Amino acid sequence: MLEQRQMALEYSKNNHDTFLNDLSNFLKIASISTSSEHKPEMMVAANAAASMLRQIGFDRVQVMPTPGHPVVFGEWMKAGPDLPTVLVYGHYDVQPVDPIDLWHSQPFSPQVQGDLLVARGSSDMKGQIVAVISAIRSILQHGPLPVNVKFLLEGEEEIGSPNLKAFLEENRELLASTIAFNPDAGMIGPDSPTIVTTLRGLAYFELRVYGPDHDLHSGLFGGIVHNPAQVLCELIAGMHDSMGRVTLPNYYKRVRALSPEERAESARLPMDDEYYQAQAGVNKLWGEQGFTSAERVGARPTLEVNGLYSGFTGSGSKTVLPAYAMAKISMRLVADQDPDEVQQQLVQYLTERAPDTVRWEITPMAGSFASAANPNSREAIAFANALESVWGVRPLYKREGGSVPVVTDMQKILGIDSVLTGFGLPDDRIHSPNEHLHLPTWYKGIDSIIYFLYNLAASDKE
Amino acid sequence: MLEQRQMALEYSKNNHDTFLNDLSNFLKIASISTSSEHKPEMMVAANAAASMLRQIGFDRVQVMPTPGHPVVFGEWMKAGPDLPTVLVYGHYDVQPVDPIDLWHSQPFSPQVQGDLLVARGSSDMKGQIVAVISAIRSILQHGPLPVNVKFLLEGEEEIGSPNLKAFLEENRELLASTIAFNPDAGMIGPDSPTIVTTLRGLAYFELRVYGPDHDLHSGLFGGIVHNPAQVLCELIAGMHDSMGRVTLPNYYKRVRALSPEERAESARLPMDDEYYQAQAGVNKLWGEQGFTSAERVGARPTLEVNGLYSGFTGSGSKTVLPAYAMAKISMRLVADQDPDEVQQQLVQYLTERAPDTVRWEITPMAGSFASAANPNSREAIAFANALESVWGVRPLYKREGGSVPVVTDMQKILGIDSVLTGFGLPDDRIHSPNEHLHLPTWYKGIDSIIYFLYNLAASDKE
Repeated sequence: MLEQRQMALEYSKNNHDTFLNDLSNFLKIASISTSSEHKPEMMVAANAAASMLRQIGFDRVQVMPTPGHPVVFGEWMKAGPDLPTVLVYGHYDVQPVDPIDLWHSQPFSPQVQGDLLVARGSSDMKGQIVAVISAIRSILQHGPLPVNVKFLLEGEEEIGSPNLKAFLEENRELLASTIAFNPDAGMIGPDSPTIVTTLRGLAYFELRVYGPDHDLHSGLFGGIVHNPAQVLCELIAGMHDSMGRVTLPNYYKRVRALSPEERAESARLPMDDEYYQAQAGVNKLWGEQGFTSAERVGARPTLEVNGLYSGFTGSGSKTVLPAYAMAKISMRLVADQDPDEVQQQLVQYLTERAPDTVRWEITPMAGSFASAANPNSREAIAFANALESVWGVRPLYKREGGSVPVVTDMQKILGIDSVLTGFGLPDDRIHSPNEHLHLPTWYKGIDSIIYFLYNLAASDKE
Repeated sequence: MLEQRQMALEYSKNNHDTFLNDLSNFLKIASISTSSEHKPEMMVAANAAASMLRQIGFDRVQVMPTPGHPVVFGEWMKAGPDLPTVLVYGHYDVQPVDPIDLWHSQPFSPQVQGDLLVARGSSDMKGQIVAVISAIRSILQHGPLPVNVKFLLEGEEEIGSPNLKAFLEENRELLASTIAFNPDAGMIGPDSPTIVTTLRGLAYFELRVYGPDHDLHSGLFGGIVHNPAQVLCELIAGMHDSMGRVTLPNYYKRVRALSPEERAESARLPMDDEYYQAQAGVNKLWGEQGFTSAERVGARPTLEVNGLYSGFTGSGSKTVLPAYAMAKISMRLVADQDPDEVQQQLVQYLTERAPDTVRWEITPMAGSFASAANPNSREAIAFANALESVWGVRPLYKREGGSVPVVTDMQKILGIDSVLTGFGLPDDRIHSPNEHLHLPTWYKGIDSIIYFLYNLAASDKE
């Protein structure tokens, strides 16, 4: 088996151009899922992904309809039922390209510029899909795969995966696997291979505060009618204390404390304040006192204002006392917070704090628990060793601030954990103009997947 | 002179239909100043106003161009230089009519419904202009006017009178007068003739708080980057204390206290909390403690949020940590606050309170001092007596919460005070669908103007 792995690595080393060519062709398809005018391209992209799977020798490859964009499935099960099955998750859809005038080249005409491949989707995440396909292709040149592999490639990740949950529920048997491999996360830096261990959950609300039954003249009524925009601001202002903590009642009750070991692991991450300041474009960070930035992003819950609207927002002035004011407010949750319980905490806060001069209502928009990927699972260890084989360093274990609902859904519906990783870098400009992929890192990523699949088979035999 | 006045009142009593017909014809012209597609109607309305002035015998009637919509001027100076000259201010432009589907009749097809004349501009303020013209017409049927009269009718009041100040400056001699008569205010109720004694000034700002240099993902950066929408809310929340007072430094330093007499006068007004609640459509009022509602509107300064904007405001959810947040904030000022000084107070507040994790800037949008119309002037007394002659009660003296910059401009540029009044009622739905005019009140108003002009001549001889 060591010899086969070596041949696969040799093939990989000698076929960078082939892999790059596959990826470039995939990137030429403008598979923007949110835009109805790109619906034909979505089908072209799904078929292209299916073709790649067929080309490397996968079976039962199919483009499966959903109420939205289709899911691409394929499998290679010849390792047999005694060996593990890896379910590779990916999405073939991409973000819109606007503002288009900020691109230095056409977003769907991939360009190699030095070490970078510039195109929409190069990093997020057609590049990650093609990395896995290239690794498998490298192995299959000289023999069988060491484990079974299935692919699940959706076309709606960038629009919130509205049909994925139902698809998982309807296709439990087809998707039955040992572990999910999800390369939709990224690396902290080119020399820091990364495994994500936890993801934050999300509770998202629209809050409206209603005052007078119609917009009023601020001269005629200013000073006697409680301004709902002012009340909204006061309510939001009260949601954090001077320590940067969220003040919703019992908000921290279920928050799992960090162990000394977890804090030490977090301190190892090369993500100091300067790193985050550069990423965010700010001169100074902020947040809950008593925690490092990495801890605040990864292990502490937050409350954010995502949007504000009230009254007159055009250019110039209008002396209106608005009838209502609206805020989009979301909380990132950590283990063991419950999004429904957080909603009750918000309601309690508003009930206690809102003055009786106004009326308020909240609309829940999204709710998910925090999720975790066990770094001590056999599969995570197999992948960590694979990363070390390629990079020569132990991977970093990162608590991710964002939410990837598919990880939780796979746990709940398919009963499998995920290895969450990826070979994109923080400055890849995903979702922004001039998205790119760092090719040296990408080639290393392909090799690490080759190692991973062999490690997985070996660890299964132990 | 008493006999002449009696004949004018007789004529007025017998010619309601004539006056109503004049007004209806004027109301048929869709003189919406803000809408460029109505520019031809603006000229039609200006010419119609000029025709009415010529018809009743005015001289030097002219439609005078400005960079925007024209001003209509006319005069009757035959009372001679020893007698006062009244400058009648009015505007022939009207507000837009949308939402059009909420109108029960066509806005520019005036309809008499019981005591009401329904049409856009009927109350604000073509009706007020035609009331003055009708009063003068009644007098001129049987003899000369007892005083000199000039008309200044602008076409841009509803869009902020952008060209009026320059017009006043360029036509000081043409407009030279003893007193301005401005019927663009209104009455507290049909049995409560009203004279406005003070108007609040205005200081209007746009405040922007800038955070990260681009919108961020609220999962990846929530908890470490200070959210500018949250900061904006905290800054706004801090602008009032628990007593409803504005907390800008030294904000009340120049505010003139109410004398016991002024408070007693204010307490006479039939504007209790129920009155304001019904007008505003709220169940409960709010405001600075220690003052009545009428005092809070008329004699105390305020700070209002007129608009809020940040991040994502569409339907659904987007997990953005916004790059900036904006608020429109305005203060209504009372004597002797200075709008420039208030701007400095706002800057000082923001300098002291804004955290160094964000950047902020303010843009001044408008600034005017509070203005006053002396209720003890000869002209105000003449008009008060006129109102009492018609209604049988002493008029109420009201401190108006809004701002009417033309009153201040006429004081500064022409050196004349205003008598600020009007015959519209609070429920006339001005600026709203189904605007109407209460005709019995309107006819009384015409008579009160007849009395006023004779009172003015008589008081001048005392």
